[in-house]
Amino acid sequence: MKKFINTAERAAQDSLAGFAMAHPHQVTVHNLTEGPTFITRNDVPVAGKVAVVSGGGTGHDPLHNGFVGPGMLDAAVPGPTFTSPTPDQIFEAIRAVDSGCGVLLIVKNYTGDVLNFEVAAELAEMEGITTSTVLVADDVAVENSTHTVGRRGVAGTLLVEKIAGAAAERGDDLAAVTAIAQRVSDNIRSMGVALEGSIVAAIGKPGIELDHDEAEIGIGIHGEPGRRRVPMTTAAEITAMLVEPVLEDMPLSSDDDVFLLVNGMGATPLGELYIVFGEAKPLIEATGATVKRSLVGSYVTSLNMQGVSVTTLKLDNEMINLWDAPVHTPALTW
Amino acid sequence: MKKFINTAERAAQDSLAGFAMAHPHQVTVHNLTEGPTFITRNDVPVAGKVAVVSGGGTGHDPLHNGFVGPGMLDAAVPGPTFTSPTPDQIFEAIRAVDSGCGVLLIVKNYTGDVLNFEVAAELAEMEGITTSTVLVADDVAVENSTHTVGRRGVAGTLLVEKIAGAAAERGDDLAAVTAIAQRVSDNIRSMGVALEGSIVAAIGKPGIELDHDEAEIGIGIHGEPGRRRVPMTTAAEITAMLVEPVLEDMPLSSDDDVFLLVNGMGATPLGELYIVFGEAKPLIEATGATVKRSLVGSYVTSLNMQGVSVTTLKLDNEMINLWDAPVHTPALTW
Repeated sequence: MKKFINTAERAAQDSLAGFAMAHPHQVTVHNLTEGPTFITRNDVPVAGKVAVVSGGGTGHDPLHNGFVGPGMLDAAVPGPTFTSPTPDQIFEAIRAVDSGCGVLLIVKNYTGDVLNFEVAAELAEMEGITTSTVLVADDVAVENSTHTVGRRGVAGTLLVEKIAGAAAERGDDLAAVTAIAQRVSDNIRSMGVALEGSIVAAIGKPGIELDHDEAEIGIGIHGEPGRRRVPMTTAAEITAMLVEPVLEDMPLSSDDDVFLLVNGMGATPLGELYIVFGEAKPLIEATGATVKRSLVGSYVTSLNMQGVSVTTLKLDNEMINLWDAPVHTPALTW
Repeated sequence: MKKFINTAERAAQDSLAGFAMAHPHQVTVHNLTEGPTFITRNDVPVAGKVAVVSGGGTGHDPLHNGFVGPGMLDAAVPGPTFTSPTPDQIFEAIRAVDSGCGVLLIVKNYTGDVLNFEVAAELAEMEGITTSTVLVADDVAVENSTHTVGRRGVAGTLLVEKIAGAAAERGDDLAAVTAIAQRVSDNIRSMGVALEGSIVAAIGKPGIELDHDEAEIGIGIHGEPGRRRVPMTTAAEITAMLVEPVLEDMPLSSDDDVFLLVNGMGATPLGELYIVFGEAKPLIEATGATVKRSLVGSYVTSLNMQGVSVTTLKLDNEMINLWDAPVHTPALTW
């Protein structure tokens, strides 16, 4: 295992320190060295605006830190590597961003995250801050898994954060922002594959060990096991193994507009992501549906995993407008 | 070697096909299947504007294809993997984008690229199209190398393309666009390191083989050998080995404003790039110089190389204004 780190213990904090140094005009990292650590856009609380907060374990960059800024998240709360943030971290972030209009919490469906965001929401309520919560559970690979009851939240989280963030930015109230976030969450499906697992520095070997001619279909973003291990094959066949279960879970027809996200897991070259996109789009459009918007890149990663995921979101016009709305974050800007 | 490809022979073309499918509203890929292949922004030729063209071997995504669009390149010309595009490809791109105001060619300093762009410029001249050429040779690692006479062109190319593209977009004439591009090229320095070499699919093993406890300091973006092989060490020490030769080659002082680019080579997680940035910025500012602008991400890559490069550009106010100017490309947008 070779990584650009100083020590395994310091890796997450050093990375966050570098992130803060790289984006001082966009984000503030609060309490970096002696928590509770959280990241906000520089102008919080934003008067008259619902705040949107997400968070989770470190190791999925740019999710969530890189999505803090106008048009997306007001705050992100980073836990240690692959570990949930604590309730007090989440609570302090909520308190820092609430303008009195309430706070939407977007939570990937992992047991630790769900519990700790719940406790934080209760602490906020005791201080008179209204919150609502939307869970993201887009991974169709497994119904329950190592760290979850129910499906895992993976790359689709990016779409919930962008669209809910845009709704908040245009002035929707908490009920409306929550409703659109929930609608996005309900209409997202994802499935991933790894050719090599991710290595947590403190552990030093991959969570899942794959042979030189194997791929793991349905892998989780913490290296959790997927559905099955298959012999390594072409991009076309692997992409089909991702798209088919996604479409089985949410059939599409010629009336449907779709968002297609092809997401790299951390160590997958962009050129290969485009190959997968080139295979996935025709498979999806073979249903008659139209891919109206898309994104290709490494946005919801798993440290150095060599892998890719395919995410579809069944779009309505409001979602399209909110996706297209301006955003100014370290990782997404237009 | 596991990659998301169909066959080694088709990898570059499949990737470009996926790229075209992903960005139809921004770019056009011309003659994908039966060359001469090149990529243009959709609205070429842009009346009254100098055109900016670059190109080179495939395998460095998003360079150059991802930088085609308003505010940056009018066209990019992709060769096969790690191989120069042919003169006729380059010539057809020049012809497609020239509006009568002339064409700036930005060429990374590799022998094949330099020769083929020269021939293309001669072909253009015979058709009455005026061109100028700026070479990029920012890699301080070696004075001559496997594929070059003189220094190699690497990640700094991105800065030349952005700043020259912005100058063209605001209406500068060919002499002025060429002058600013040359000024940027003259003031850029880069140095890279790899922990694992890149694997060309048709070859099947890394161009440079590193042991589990070794790093190659001064690596090229085609996996060319660097200055020396060192025992694997901390991010802090590795970053110092990149920053020191850059500063030796272009000393900085307290009067200087600097751009700092920390660039991933294709398989390096973003979280690790931020660790390197967090080490590099203080080393550069220890000279008294100020890091006025920066960028962290995987922009000039080498297939699946696990590596990072550090680039500095000594800035003047015009460069800062042109960097900040709007850009709308698949890989950079603001």
